Amino acid sequence: MLTKAQVKFIKSLQEKKYRKLEQCFLVEGEKSVLELLESDFKSKMIVGTATFLSTHHHLLNHLNCIEATEQELSGLGEFRTNKGALAVVEIKHTTLQNLKPSKLYLVLDNIQDPGNLGTIIRTADWYGIQQIIVSEDTVEFYNPKVIAATKGSFTRVEVVYTDIKNWLLQQNQHSIYGALLGGENVRHTEFDENAILIIGNEAHGIRLEILPLIQKKITIPKYGKAESLNAAIATAILLDRMVS
Amino acid sequence: MLTKAQVKFIKSLQEKKYRKLEQCFLVEGEKSVLELLESDFKSKMIVGTATFLSTHHHLLNHLNCIEATEQELSGLGEFRTNKGALAVVEIKHTTLQNLKPSKLYLVLDNIQDPGNLGTIIRTADWYGIQQIIVSEDTVEFYNPKVIAATKGSFTRVEVVYTDIKNWLLQQNQHSIYGALLGGENVRHTEFDENAILIIGNEAHGIRLEILPLIQKKITIPKYGKAESLNAAIATAILLDRMVS
Repeated sequence: MLTKAQVKFIKSLQEKKYRKLEQCFLVEGEKSVLELLESDFKSKMIVGTATFLSTHHHLLNHLNCIEATEQELSGLGEFRTNKGALAVVEIKHTTLQNLKPSKLYLVLDNIQDPGNLGTIIRTADWYGIQQIIVSEDTVEFYNPKVIAATKGSFTRVEVVYTDIKNWLLQQNQHSIYGALLGGENVRHTEFDENAILIIGNEAHGIRLEILPLIQKKITIPKYGKAESLNAAIATAILLDRMVS
Repeated sequence: MLTKAQVKFIKSLQEKKYRKLEQCFLVEGEKSVLELLESDFKSKMIVGTATFLSTHHHLLNHLNCIEATEQELSGLGEFRTNKGALAVVEIKHTTLQNLKPSKLYLVLDNIQDPGNLGTIIRTADWYGIQQIIVSEDTVEFYNPKVIAATKGSFTRVEVVYTDIKNWLLQQNQHSIYGALLGGENVRHTEFDENAILIIGNEAHGIRLEILPLIQKKITIPKYGKAESLNAAIATAILLDRMVS
């Protein structure tokens, strides 16, 4: 059974300052918790329904497991309803030193919406991209809304927070592409084998000081009247054209 | 100045039952309200900051305008902060009789997430699709989260709720494509000039009884490990391959 102190601790992790203080984050929902258990993240606590704990007991050896009702579970995290499980997990710090050589890098400049970042991570995972480089002002990877939107892909895609201008200045083996209005039609672009794709902020696009580093501006052709595309949608359409 | 009764009325429209009862919905944020004012939707009330009302007074003739502070505005709708305006707008009922002939129809089967429906509407607008046919159990178009995610495209794209199986059975001029796992690689698909694209529910895909109506199953090629793509992302990637 959950103690009052445990409930308070878990709920506190909905807030960034407590995640930073405790160096822990929340994973909600049966599917995401199962993906977590198969990853190298370290779980500090698994709260699950009796059904969840008995069905998956072979995955739960040596873990701190606590039984809870669906009602108790649903009150703990961001999810309005949670019928399976929730985990408290140790934060991993990924830095540029962890970056593996890759032909294709995805760079995000100040993405602010947690749903967008999570969806971009899930999409990157679909296209086999295992690392994303993001500006320091990008929304926090461990925000529960980001983790939820990744649908488990947070276990496979690493997100590195860094000074992206500085990092881009050091990349001389890759061609740098930027998603911008008024660039070359992506359908006619022959992408170089080593490529970096930069996606900008939802409202303001790529920041001014990054623009001179872009070697080729690319654009998704528009046939209708919407002023712009959602940032995660644009990322997906461009990756679909770049990855082959 | 807003009266208590007006505040109560506006807030009630966050809920579906009051939208149905009052036949009104909310549009939040300066940009969306400006797109609304240029559309054929009928606004019953515009609540705006002094700056908004004076800047756009030429668009506001004969409308019922009420001045409010940013703080008052932010308490009225779904938005945590709203620095511009909010509108109370009359619901329009779009039925199959309103459907215009089109070479490409987009059909949604039980999309449940308001952000997904809104993003699909915005993406459809980008690709010049002016009508979307959705199953009766699809999330409500007038949900404030749907309207917000469309970023103004709700004024240009009509959404028709109907029995999609019945509608599909009547379409003999269009080839019916369904987004499914294990279908033909969309990159190798030669789409017929008259085409219908069906997108399924976020968790369960296209419902069983619709599957026999699909003439060609199409799939987005996967290079990594994510189990699936977000429904709005998949719609966008497929439209990008279909529209030319």
